[in-house]
Amino acid sequence: MISLVLLGTGNLAKHLFNVFLGVNEIRVLQVIGRNVDQLAHFKDRVVTETDFTKIADADIYIIAVSDDAIASVATFLKDKNGLVVHTSGSVPLKSLGGLNKRGVFYPLQTFSEGKTINFKEVPVCIEAEDKNDLELLKKLAGLISLKVHEITSDQRKSLHLAAVFVNNFTNFLFTIGQDICTEHNLPFSLLTPLIKETVNKLDYLPPFDAQTGPAKRNDVKTMESHLKQLKNKNYQDIYSLFSQLIGEKYGQKL
Amino acid sequence: MISLVLLGTGNLAKHLFNVFLGVNEIRVLQVIGRNVDQLAHFKDRVVTETDFTKIADADIYIIAVSDDAIASVATFLKDKNGLVVHTSGSVPLKSLGGLNKRGVFYPLQTFSEGKTINFKEVPVCIEAEDKNDLELLKKLAGLISLKVHEITSDQRKSLHLAAVFVNNFTNFLFTIGQDICTEHNLPFSLLTPLIKETVNKLDYLPPFDAQTGPAKRNDVKTMESHLKQLKNKNYQDIYSLFSQLIGEKYGQKL
Repeated sequence: MISLVLLGTGNLAKHLFNVFLGVNEIRVLQVIGRNVDQLAHFKDRVVTETDFTKIADADIYIIAVSDDAIASVATFLKDKNGLVVHTSGSVPLKSLGGLNKRGVFYPLQTFSEGKTINFKEVPVCIEAEDKNDLELLKKLAGLISLKVHEITSDQRKSLHLAAVFVNNFTNFLFTIGQDICTEHNLPFSLLTPLIKETVNKLDYLPPFDAQTGPAKRNDVKTMESHLKQLKNKNYQDIYSLFSQLIGEKYGQKL
Repeated sequence: MISLVLLGTGNLAKHLFNVFLGVNEIRVLQVIGRNVDQLAHFKDRVVTETDFTKIADADIYIIAVSDDAIASVATFLKDKNGLVVHTSGSVPLKSLGGLNKRGVFYPLQTFSEGKTINFKEVPVCIEAEDKNDLELLKKLAGLISLKVHEITSDQRKSLHLAAVFVNNFTNFLFTIGQDICTEHNLPFSLLTPLIKETVNKLDYLPPFDAQTGPAKRNDVKTMESHLKQLKNKNYQDIYSLFSQLIGEKYGQKL
């Protein structure tokens, strides 16, 4: 049995809490947060607390707050004997300060309000300085996910950067696709099967090998026609930059 | 019963052929292509022909060749009475020349060698000048797909442009993600659950509303740290441009 205290009440805290509740070997002792409204989500199922000086004793303290608040929340845990972990992709382990036992428990996923995630498929990236702490994190992560990875703070930073490209920027391309559709009175849903297949290919083909399109073929005529169609200067800039970089990557001279 | 001749032997021709074979109401009379090796894929199951002057009489002729070759293939059909359609996203209907009956049959999907697609879910965008031709295309498309859309040549052109953003450019972002992972000794598979969830969100949330990340939050500290981490000047350019445009779109002053 692993006892836990969850510090934070946002999306990630809610998702973790829901997953932990379904595991017999995990006991959530307490959820702590300043926001009473947010705490309401938890209060019927666990002890909640708004006062960070009243933290229960537990095996693991999971800090699931915004990056900027991690260091200050950690100071409330400096006298605890349990393992203190944060859940951020970009904050170094050392930001937790001079704790006895510190680590990182980073679920690499985008969590939305009200949308259930199959946590078994979510990669959980863990880090700890002490071997026993690492074993404890492995055990905890293994109880909720099939994909547990030990990585360093540097690797986690890179992973977070890569995630910005494949998640945030990709989503912005979808927004551009939607803008083009809306402008021409087309439903965006026409594009979703294509988008899904582009992603499905990742399971058996590296994206470098899956690349298609006018820029890869150096199809100058189509690219010029596309640029002319784009009224939005920003979208023209994205089109030009991508076409240039895809051309360079695949050895075309543009 | 709709009788068909398929002109072309590439990926799309193969996928269409396989789908048509499974439909009782469709009979493929002939597959025509110059490339004997490519024709071999079809020859045990249908009459094949390399000579474009020997095209069988059919209700519909489907030209599934590269954009540049469409107009010249169409000239071989100028004396036929059946409906002639091409399958391209970016070529106008008029490029088929002075045929009696012409139209467009554009399956909006990315087709890979050897990878089966559930055609029922593939949007088929159709266009024809004559009402009866349109009805025939609707019937044909409806036999293989649940998603039949009548759109104009202009709309199709825009759709193809949007597809470049959401498919080609998105895939290039995945390649950047993979490059960053490889450089830091991380498996790219760590990112695929995130990518899939980003796409799954499209089913219930418009991408504009789903946007997250440092650029949307105007988190200057994280963006500066990310730019510093990127050694590749091209990837820095993409990072800067996306961050700027996301910032503008969501009303941040960067």
